[in-house]
Amino acid sequence: MEKVFVFGHKNPDTDSICSAIVHAELKKQLGMTVEPIRLGEINSETQYALDYFKVDAPRLVENVGDEVNSVILVDHNERQQSADGIENLRILEVIDHHRVANFETSDPLYFRVEPVGCTATILNKLYKENNVSISKEMAGLMLSAIISDSLLFKSPTCTDEDIQAARELAGISGVNADEYGLEMLKAGANVSDKTASQLISLDSKEFAMNGSKVQIAQVNVVDPSELMSRQEDLEEVMNKEINEKGLDLFLLVITDILNNDSVAIAAGEKVSAVEKAYNVTLNNNTAVLKGVVSRKKQVVPVLTEAFSNLVSKI
Amino acid sequence: MEKVFVFGHKNPDTDSICSAIVHAELKKQLGMTVEPIRLGEINSETQYALDYFKVDAPRLVENVGDEVNSVILVDHNERQQSADGIENLRILEVIDHHRVANFETSDPLYFRVEPVGCTATILNKLYKENNVSISKEMAGLMLSAIISDSLLFKSPTCTDEDIQAARELAGISGVNADEYGLEMLKAGANVSDKTASQLISLDSKEFAMNGSKVQIAQVNVVDPSELMSRQEDLEEVMNKEINEKGLDLFLLVITDILNNDSVAIAAGEKVSAVEKAYNVTLNNNTAVLKGVVSRKKQVVPVLTEAFSNLVSKI
Repeated sequence: MEKVFVFGHKNPDTDSICSAIVHAELKKQLGMTVEPIRLGEINSETQYALDYFKVDAPRLVENVGDEVNSVILVDHNERQQSADGIENLRILEVIDHHRVANFETSDPLYFRVEPVGCTATILNKLYKENNVSISKEMAGLMLSAIISDSLLFKSPTCTDEDIQAARELAGISGVNADEYGLEMLKAGANVSDKTASQLISLDSKEFAMNGSKVQIAQVNVVDPSELMSRQEDLEEVMNKEINEKGLDLFLLVITDILNNDSVAIAAGEKVSAVEKAYNVTLNNNTAVLKGVVSRKKQVVPVLTEAFSNLVSKI
Repeated sequence: MEKVFVFGHKNPDTDSICSAIVHAELKKQLGMTVEPIRLGEINSETQYALDYFKVDAPRLVENVGDEVNSVILVDHNERQQSADGIENLRILEVIDHHRVANFETSDPLYFRVEPVGCTATILNKLYKENNVSISKEMAGLMLSAIISDSLLFKSPTCTDEDIQAARELAGISGVNADEYGLEMLKAGANVSDKTASQLISLDSKEFAMNGSKVQIAQVNVVDPSELMSRQEDLEEVMNKEINEKGLDLFLLVITDILNNDSVAIAAGEKVSAVEKAYNVTLNNNTAVLKGVVSRKKQVVPVLTEAFSNLVSKI
């Protein structure tokens, strides 16, 4: 049987890595020949989860099309967030919890997107729908993904379904979700040993907004001032990426995981979109985004809206 | 609570009408304020099903945005097949069984596409997943949709899941699927009273294929020669639509529901794509497409492929 790769988005976060492993395991149980892979480096939060539950990291594959013809996407659907050359591959399935955009197939497929906080919450359902039992390890990885995406259930993206799934999965995996979760988030929030380049690509996604190219990176920390002291270095690498990729805006969102606020650093020709989106004035290219912790719910939609207004005024 | 419209594609077929009614009923049972509507005329096959199960047709709404802000799409996702102005509406859900293309939202949503033969097959699952019991009428409409889309289980799009769902639904609705199904298909295949304009818009969809605009209409008949005797009239209205909509190709697929073959009439500047796709030579603008009954599985993908080759040779 033809082998199929299962993978999450570029610059993978804990959901992208864990959901690739967990969904590949489900597909294996259902008789498919699959391998979970990753499109980028494992971050320290994800490594903590993999170590804790003693699961190997998926293999890094740079040129997906060299090895397989068919793929399953988890935790993303937009072309620019996926493997290079994705337009030449057959996409058999998508399991995701983001907006749908920049996606096209020529054939029908299984496309399951739900407005929940985490891909793993949908996978937990899929195991049940297919009557496949969930191992302790897979439960642990799904729980880790939900804790990561929901910032320990505090993000506005977190739904009752996510909380219910996390409760079930904590039971199967045998951990205390709050204690384990805080340790995992702290492991990821330790960014003192990261270079500026690493920081802006840890969890970074590109979006097309009304014709503009917008990169939005997010870093979780326990003390934002530590990173703000490196603002000059960060802006330098942000501007480098703007030039290389032809971006109109690069927004770096530094999220305080204890107080649930963010500080943003903006660079690029269209920084005014940030000011419009949040009704703030950038001060030395930065702004405090009170209560903002979710890129998906509190950044992407408001910036998309701001960009549509920007253009309509031209 | 804000009202939400549920609707299928333009030029609605039995699945688009029945699935809108059936899914709206599910949403009502779950506490939402919804109304099923339709974007076009009811065809005689669908009318037969509605009459048989004594269910009213949904209301025809031309300007969806004048009445609601939020919508649920069934049986389609591509923008050009949906309500005019769909890009200004909030799409809460999509339940579909086609390829995914030309679709974009700014927010996460519930997007459930499965590679099965009929939207109603997915709806049958959703009733179960939500623990909502299926009435005799709703079962009858779902059964009708599956019979219509699968040409009484003979189309290559028909999956085991569709057959299993149809069996369950026939039981609930209390009809013999084969007997009822043949009568329903025959009611739809009686096209002698239709004008040429009506014939080419009965079940007609527009597709974007590698930059080209392609309209594909399908008519089910019991005797293709009856329609072929009206070829001149049909080509006249096809060419009129080509000019009005700026189409590159208009393909009319006339399907013999008893013998499961089709005859195609092609018009437009890019008819050569049809010759490449099926490795045939058009004779007086027509070609026999042996064993072809499914637009989705046997027409759209092969034409899409032919168009991608056409352009790469320029």
